[in-house]
Amino acid sequence: MSGNLYEDEANCSVARALELVEERWSLLILRDALFHGITRFADFQRSLGLAHTVLAKRLETFVAAGIMETRQHGPNAVRREYVPTAKGLDFKPVLIALAAWGDRWAAPHGPPVVYEHAGCGGHVEQQQRCSICGSVLELTDIAARVHRATYRGRRAPTR
Amino acid sequence: MSGNLYEDEANCSVARALELVEERWSLLILRDALFHGITRFADFQRSLGLAHTVLAKRLETFVAAGIMETRQHGPNAVRREYVPTAKGLDFKPVLIALAAWGDRWAAPHGPPVVYEHAGCGGHVEQQQRCSICGSVLELTDIAARVHRATYRGRRAPTR
Repeated sequence: MSGNLYEDEANCSVARALELVEERWSLLILRDALFHGITRFADFQRSLGLAHTVLAKRLETFVAAGIMETRQHGPNAVRREYVPTAKGLDFKPVLIALAAWGDRWAAPHGPPVVYEHAGCGGHVEQQQRCSICGSVLELTDIAARVHRATYRGRRAPTR
Repeated sequence: MSGNLYEDEANCSVARALELVEERWSLLILRDALFHGITRFADFQRSLGLAHTVLAKRLETFVAAGIMETRQHGPNAVRREYVPTAKGLDFKPVLIALAAWGDRWAAPHGPPVVYEHAGCGGHVEQQQRCSICGSVLELTDIAARVHRATYRGRRAPTR
């Protein structure tokens, strides 16, 4: 199979997701926010060792994209907290998938972080299931189909 | 919770996974390879509109990292094909998770690509399940725990 599968590269959901979190620091900030409960600028900075300006820019990008929202912390409203929105929390499966791949293929000392069912202690296992037959799918059983209807009325390919 | 959770940032599986596929083009190349069956240089280039040198560098990085392997195509071995290895195929859940998030939060015209159970036609649904109780987990029920044993014998924190 070959050729330009997307009329417009920006119409791919993977590409759209990457527009918002396309670089390493963005994903590591989200990791800290979603799984380690970090909300304060100084705590993100301590965890990641990231330059003030870079961190500030990334957090503002998340706020502008609706992935985080700011809250005032304390009576004099000096401290801002950065809290994930529903859109931000929904990014957890991406980080779980990335961590699982890293654990399997790039963790010679074993998984450094374990994702658990809070209160039960079981490990989190990510599965792909079929909406019709209910099977747990092997990765080789998963195909992608371009959903033509989505393109109706959109601009013609330029490449 | 605050502070540097990882003795060494490179010991986080998310960070390690990102070292290999940390930028947009890498993930879009993998998308084309894993879900659209693209194997030839010219076909990747046609699909992505990517500069020759950039594409060549990304593909070589994948080969060096064991994510793809090259095969000679045709009797005179002029054409090389880039084929995902098991390590590469195992990246599918990350792309499915990214696409699902993009579909939910950044696809006003609906999902441009549908992931399906080949031969059945059902949609692929990604779930997080608990290894002990078997529950399908809500995202709020998932916690991360730093696995201290993994750090034994590793270097002390530098930050």
